Amino acid sequence: MNWKRELEKMLVSARQAASHAGQEPPAFKKKLLWDIASGIEKRTKWLVAENRKDLIKAETSGLSSAMIDRLTLNEKRIKAMAEGVLAVARLKDPIGRVQAKWTRPNGLKLQKVTVPLGVILMIYESRPNVTVECAALCLKSSNVAILRGGREAMASNRALVSIFKKSLKQHGLSPFHVNLVSTTDYAAVDFLLKQGGKIDLVIPRGGEKLIRRVVEKSRIPVIKHYQGICHVYVDKNADLKKAVAITLNAKLQRPGVCNAMETLLVHQDIAGKFLPVVGDLLKQGGCEVRGDGVTCRIIPWAKRVKTSDYGHEFLEKILAVRVVKDLEEAIRHIEAHGSRHTDAIVTENKKAAKIFKIKVDSSSVMINASTRFSDGFEYGFGAEIGISTDKIHARGPMGLEGLTSYKYIVEGNGHIRS
Amino acid sequence: MNWKRELEKMLVSARQAASHAGQEPPAFKKKLLWDIASGIEKRTKWLVAENRKDLIKAETSGLSSAMIDRLTLNEKRIKAMAEGVLAVARLKDPIGRVQAKWTRPNGLKLQKVTVPLGVILMIYESRPNVTVECAALCLKSSNVAILRGGREAMASNRALVSIFKKSLKQHGLSPFHVNLVSTTDYAAVDFLLKQGGKIDLVIPRGGEKLIRRVVEKSRIPVIKHYQGICHVYVDKNADLKKAVAITLNAKLQRPGVCNAMETLLVHQDIAGKFLPVVGDLLKQGGCEVRGDGVTCRIIPWAKRVKTSDYGHEFLEKILAVRVVKDLEEAIRHIEAHGSRHTDAIVTENKKAAKIFKIKVDSSSVMINASTRFSDGFEYGFGAEIGISTDKIHARGPMGLEGLTSYKYIVEGNGHIRS
Repeated sequence: MNWKRELEKMLVSARQAASHAGQEPPAFKKKLLWDIASGIEKRTKWLVAENRKDLIKAETSGLSSAMIDRLTLNEKRIKAMAEGVLAVARLKDPIGRVQAKWTRPNGLKLQKVTVPLGVILMIYESRPNVTVECAALCLKSSNVAILRGGREAMASNRALVSIFKKSLKQHGLSPFHVNLVSTTDYAAVDFLLKQGGKIDLVIPRGGEKLIRRVVEKSRIPVIKHYQGICHVYVDKNADLKKAVAITLNAKLQRPGVCNAMETLLVHQDIAGKFLPVVGDLLKQGGCEVRGDGVTCRIIPWAKRVKTSDYGHEFLEKILAVRVVKDLEEAIRHIEAHGSRHTDAIVTENKKAAKIFKIKVDSSSVMINASTRFSDGFEYGFGAEIGISTDKIHARGPMGLEGLTSYKYIVEGNGHIRS
Repeated sequence: MNWKRELEKMLVSARQAASHAGQEPPAFKKKLLWDIASGIEKRTKWLVAENRKDLIKAETSGLSSAMIDRLTLNEKRIKAMAEGVLAVARLKDPIGRVQAKWTRPNGLKLQKVTVPLGVILMIYESRPNVTVECAALCLKSSNVAILRGGREAMASNRALVSIFKKSLKQHGLSPFHVNLVSTTDYAAVDFLLKQGGKIDLVIPRGGEKLIRRVVEKSRIPVIKHYQGICHVYVDKNADLKKAVAITLNAKLQRPGVCNAMETLLVHQDIAGKFLPVVGDLLKQGGCEVRGDGVTCRIIPWAKRVKTSDYGHEFLEKILAVRVVKDLEEAIRHIEAHGSRHTDAIVTENKKAAKIFKIKVDSSSVMINASTRFSDGFEYGFGAEIGISTDKIHARGPMGLEGLTSYKYIVEGNGHIRS
């Protein structure tokens, strides 16, 4: 277990780095990120060569072509990574922001000020651009990053992290602000997940299986991203044109992502008008429809839905459809089968929209908008470190703000408590 | 394991109650809490009689007189509990508050709105007033409470919770908004701590041992309150009068609580003036001083400090004292030995105060004020559900806001993503 000693040393250095973080002025961090971006671009050829090592291994080990594509770095992708770092550099600095200030009747002045979380462990899969993105976001938020990427991308990740470390040193900072777990032994992950007190937060990015595994093993708080079982409810007072556009967009624009719709709920009063139109367009888009009895009468080519299709995350061109009696039934369906990720109502009725947005307890509730907007960039956060399906700490799309905590600064004039 | 089936039923009902919570208007919740307060006062005699059952058991089982005092309910204490409920009723409603609103360039309107967390498990020790306080705070924040109080207080807690349940029913709400774990089997706690998905947050209130045990067993996020190893640093530019007052207050006003000072750090340039004065007053207050070499030369009656005294939570009239070279050494000492709870600087030098407040990463940083102010009531939160020594979700004194999460409400006009 050589890796164990190595990780222990890394954790000590990471904690030391973290204890000095949060003190660099915003301009300093910006400059650091600029240098890293230019370092990445300058070393394009070398990065392609290092990436090539991963690709050769991947080909001989029989990785799928889709996976190999995700793994590949070329000039264009490296440029995009560097630009990503510049985009993070441009974001508003999230540290040292006064979230609230007030004065107590006794004259004590209070401020609630944002601070970094400390040491963050990111666990993710094969794409090397995630390495750059996470490291940049952690630096911007003055957190220390411990990165555990996919084993397929080890050479690429090592090369990328070395560029970060070099810039850190050149700016007089500890290179341990950005750390790569360089063992592929899965036991090393289990070991890290037990280091409460040394690591402050774990953010796994990947499929549900990865996340469940991390949650199961972790003694450290985990930002969980489970399923996105998103619903669109088309109300009886929906504008049909909007309903059709939103349905198609939510289902078909990118079916494989968490904020794509999985189940369509349609008010019975509008089903006869809406379903034939949207059904044809879904069919043209190559989407299989699995409907309840009413739906199947209106869309004769639809398959019959199974109970297990409700609440299932298809992540492909399959849509469950149910005709509901009213708004309340739609809300109950979402409560029973949803994952509290993102759910939408299409309606021109303000009262229905109001009831829906109060009663549906999802991290994002959409009114007359596609579920696909549930995303840190679309919300204007400028970055997304993940989407939380939890209600603790951060919920929904999570930008830099989710990587901060706060402290209270209390200023008195010799105040003592009586 | 009869309790297991009972708890499983309770969890289902609690989750159902939670799914409807957050929808009651603020005025409704206020009225509910008024009724509960008056219910408590009206049933004073009965509560005293029920409490008597606990006291009889406690006496025969040989509980300490201090513990018996904490357990005892009398007319005055019951009145204070009812008043506590009224105070919670008067607080600003924490649910449905718009934390932020903005419009995206594409016209999407976003709101970030506070929502309840869901089901909260509180684990605490013998005082029955904690039952009332926690239940009231959970109702005010539209959360469902599962209360696991001390076994010594079972009859009292049962009586108190029955008053809550009665009022809930009278207001047309599920009585499962407030739940008492009525088994004293510790295995029931372990069982509850595994119910991730059914319980959203665990808040243990008690000694470090209790909290470590909960963290060890829990699969649910836990608000941790470990140690309060609080420091006061008296800078060379301190106002001596303020320094003396703050030192005495932080150490002696209530030595047994988490925000009391445990270690005093004194700048070498001021030690000769400050320590003799404060030493005499500490002695008069019955406080043992354990000092480093310099301190012991200045205060001849002081004991010699052991390394293990630094970073030790005495919780009694014992104070570790160290003379430091400068501000940086004080900060390093706090970093090495503190618990990031509350640390104070006494100085008239603005630059020193600024460095201290930036570099000391504690949940509360005090400038010229006693550490004893680190408290939800003193901060004006109107309530305190606990103090978090963690940086995830909530940090420091935690009022109603710590019992909320948020959701994004996104309003479009048929917006689809391109």
